[in-house]
Amino acid sequence: MRFVKMQGIGNDYVYIDGFDQQIEQPERLAARVSDRHFGIGGDGLILILPSQIADARMRVFNADGSEAQMCGNGIRCVAKYLYEARRVQRRELTIETAAGLRQLQLRTDAADRVVQVSVDMGAPRLQRSALPMTGPSDEQALGVRLELADQAFEAYCLSMGNPHCVIFVPDVAAVPLALWGPQIETHAWFPERINVEFVQVLSPEAVRQRTWERGAGETLACGTGASAVTVAGFLSGRTGRRIRNQLTGGELELYYSEEGPVIMTGPAVEVCRGTFVPAELLT
Amino acid sequence: MRFVKMQGIGNDYVYIDGFDQQIEQPERLAARVSDRHFGIGGDGLILILPSQIADARMRVFNADGSEAQMCGNGIRCVAKYLYEARRVQRRELTIETAAGLRQLQLRTDAADRVVQVSVDMGAPRLQRSALPMTGPSDEQALGVRLELADQAFEAYCLSMGNPHCVIFVPDVAAVPLALWGPQIETHAWFPERINVEFVQVLSPEAVRQRTWERGAGETLACGTGASAVTVAGFLSGRTGRRIRNQLTGGELELYYSEEGPVIMTGPAVEVCRGTFVPAELLT
Repeated sequence: MRFVKMQGIGNDYVYIDGFDQQIEQPERLAARVSDRHFGIGGDGLILILPSQIADARMRVFNADGSEAQMCGNGIRCVAKYLYEARRVQRRELTIETAAGLRQLQLRTDAADRVVQVSVDMGAPRLQRSALPMTGPSDEQALGVRLELADQAFEAYCLSMGNPHCVIFVPDVAAVPLALWGPQIETHAWFPERINVEFVQVLSPEAVRQRTWERGAGETLACGTGASAVTVAGFLSGRTGRRIRNQLTGGELELYYSEEGPVIMTGPAVEVCRGTFVPAELLT
Repeated sequence: MRFVKMQGIGNDYVYIDGFDQQIEQPERLAARVSDRHFGIGGDGLILILPSQIADARMRVFNADGSEAQMCGNGIRCVAKYLYEARRVQRRELTIETAAGLRQLQLRTDAADRVVQVSVDMGAPRLQRSALPMTGPSDEQALGVRLELADQAFEAYCLSMGNPHCVIFVPDVAAVPLALWGPQIETHAWFPERINVEFVQVLSPEAVRQRTWERGAGETLACGTGASAVTVAGFLSGRTGRRIRNQLTGGELELYYSEEGPVIMTGPAVEVCRGTFVPAELLT
């Protein structure tokens, strides 16, 4: 079976083209392929499949075999693959995800290789019920006081398809993320837990982000998290609508458009491509 | 550039055939290729090269770019590669390493694929100076009392090319390895630090091992460690000359031969093969 390994600011997946390959037991395959010692190694498996309503459909499987709705770093790599494999010949394309359709735009280099991809991450949902979060379901939770055992924060809680808690700090490098992350993730406010972003504002156009993902711990990058940070920064008056966000794994450009959606632009990089024998990994 | 990713009981490397490919800056390439998010991902890079004095020569680079002398799990995969790529057509072969020549024997399946490989790991060196270790240089350190801040062990210290400290315990699963491992690794007895194996004897023919590697922490497997365990088990009367060792990543068969060398037999598994562009990973 053919595969490509690609990464977007360090968020790496094994990609399998399902246009001309039959993929059986994707949950089980995802767990085996993602294993970093016994498998190819990655944050998960992404299937690139035909779609009735878009240029392609993507299915995202985490390393534990569970299916995710969307992956902002992964979808950029899917777009790169589709263009470079000539499954799509345009620089604007649409990809179907479990979270809905996504519009993407490609930037290519002199050799017609895709180097940057913009993706419409959708509009934020600000009401508590969207996260979900305790409290009056129609109310927002922007700038609320979040208390831990011996610490309190001003928190901006919103959904970008998945729930985020954004906290601005003077120095992200100094944040004891392994200590605070799990306490916020499992805080009583969030019945389905929450992703956490600590953010340092460098200027109205630039921030630095560290990410704590629910179920995964500190990660190099989170696209929906970077989008949530953009919304929180703008709505709290800390940043403008356009920012550059330095995540641990690399940089994203973000634009919280007047029309509502957040447009995220970032790199998509091929690491290697090759073949493996599924039966050997599945034994 | 072509590569193969292979693993032996979870010890995974990226292998590059240097018989027909030019490999520049291997230290730098090793660090980039081994990165588990931005590179192919592995414990390191192993080059398979022509030799004047053996069937092939292997060079082992750790994920930090430093060069290692030998890797017991890696050399089995090199032998598998040489046979299946038909660079060697015999089931007995010799591989040149930075630690000297190693003899190997292959076991193949019905499809003539290599599934198990035996390797001569060399003879143990028991004198303290071989590790090195403080104390009278010609004396052995088998069954010595090793004291930590609030703990003491009966330790068997010996060299299998690199230094090992073997400690027998009733239950390896209960060992707080992240706590004890670094204290032993950096104990004043060992000026160049040491690898640590905690071992549970299941029967005179079977043991279970957990491994703390200097500079790496807890690992899935260590071939020289498993060899040291075999020697320590036999010399202390706990086990016979032939044992099966269940390491965290899988099982090895070991034989401490009457002639001196330890013969280790274990699996060699191909994960995937493919191509990558060195210039893209090196940017």
